[in-house]
Amino acid sequence: MALVPNNSLITPTPEEGRELAIMLARKTIGAIQPDENVRKTLRPAYATDADSLTAAGHVVAIEFATVAAANNYWRG
Amino acid sequence: MALVPNNSLITPTPEEGRELAIMLARKTIGAIQPDENVRKTLRPAYATDADSLTAAGHVVAIEFATVAAANNYWRG
Amino acid sequence: MALVPNNSLITPTPEEGRELAIMLARKTIGAIQPDENVRKTLRPAYATDADSLTAAGHVVAIEFATVAAANNYWRG
Amino acid sequence: MALVPNNSLITPTPEEGRELAIMLARKTIGAIQPDENVRKTLRPAYATDADSLTAAGHVVAIEFATVAAANNYWRG
Amino acid sequence: MALVPNNSLITPTPEEGRELAIMLARKTIGAIQPDENVRKTLRPAYATDADSLTAAGHVVAIEFATVAAANNYWRG
Amino acid sequence: MALVPNNSLITPTPEEGRELAIMLARKTIGAIQPDENVRKTLRPAYATDADSLTAAGHVVAIEFATVAAANNYWRG
Repeated sequence: MALVPNNSLITPTPEEGRELAIMLARKTIGAIQPDENVRKTLRPAYATDADSLTAAGHVVAIEFATVAAANNYWRG
Repeated sequence: MALVPNNSLITPTPEEGRELAIMLARKTIGAIQPDENVRKTLRPAYATDADSLTAAGHVVAIEFATVAAANNYWRG
Repeated sequence: MALVPNNSLITPTPEEGRELAIMLARKTIGAIQPDENVRKTLRPAYATDADSLTAAGHVVAIEFATVAAANNYWRG
Repeated sequence: MALVPNNSLITPTPEEGRELAIMLARKTIGAIQPDENVRKTLRPAYATDADSLTAAGHVVAIEFATVAAANNYWRG
Repeated sequence: MALVPNNSLITPTPEEGRELAIMLARKTIGAIQPDENVRKTLRPAYATDADSLTAAGHVVAIEFATVAAANNYWRG
Repeated sequence: MALVPNNSLITPTPEEGRELAIMLARKTIGAIQPDENVRKTLRPAYATDADSLTAAGHVVAIEFATVAAANNYWRG
């Protein structure tokens, strides 16, 4: 299973960097809980719980910090 | 959906950098829970819960760290 | 509403940098919950809960990391 | 017990860096709770709890930030 | 009230840097909850709760990261 | 009490850096709750709780980020 899509942290734009950050976060969950059916069962409750959504957004923020640094913040 | 407004982390001032950090945090939640009606349903409870507000502020602080680094802290 | 007092991360001393970090954290909460009366209602419970205080201190620590980096740690 | 596989943070690719981040996180848990049977007992509940999975993914994100910096983000 | 003892992040050694990190964390709590009696009331419960202690240690770790960077990690 | 073993963040290898990170996290808890008997009482419950273990691993990850940076990631 690929944990890092395209096996690279480099993206052309911040938007794609953000998408990568979301995917990195999701792939980790997939590695810890590989059963897709279990993950699908969990989704409705967590996607309607504000604190769960904030916690998920927190992880994305951390992943994005790494992706943004990798791309020198797309200062270009 | 745009995850990064203007597709850039560069802002003219810290104030606009802070606004961007808040928007980045919100756009992630929108990507995880795309149903606007669900998000609106969650808002009253979470906006009147001190710990939920602190958790949201925590995410903004992390997003801002990235935006501030991207802008060399607007040292001028 | 100003999210960043004086629209700058630069402060003359660490003490003022710390005060700025606390203000940054508070301004975010004000942006998410703009109703001052609601915020005042929440304060007594959260200010007498050790875990809530630790969580608030956590956010200040992250904001301060950014402010300190912006000021090159006031190494002088 | 080895806390850092191969005693190095350097990996050839981001994918292997991500695998290392997951292993670093797991090895710490093994150091704190060395009894494998206890750890196995805990697994079913935590792997089917969305917030527990998010918290685990959070730790991996932090470990990966370190591994990615060590590898200069594989900018190559 | 002083939020940063000696108004400096510079310390001669890592040990003193660690003490400073603990003090920074405590001073923030003092700024949010200035009533010493309230803080003393909270202490027994939080100091005997493993998760509260871990959360406090978490904040110290973040403060220390800033202090250590300020001191170039005392690399000598 | 020593908060930083050997009063240094420099270690010869990542493995020893990881051990230092675990010790730094533990020494902080010891500073906040100096009563060893209390700490021993807390241990059984927290070491058999997945979320408590994840939270402890989280702190170690942050401490390790600092130690790794101090050692230039042992890039050799």
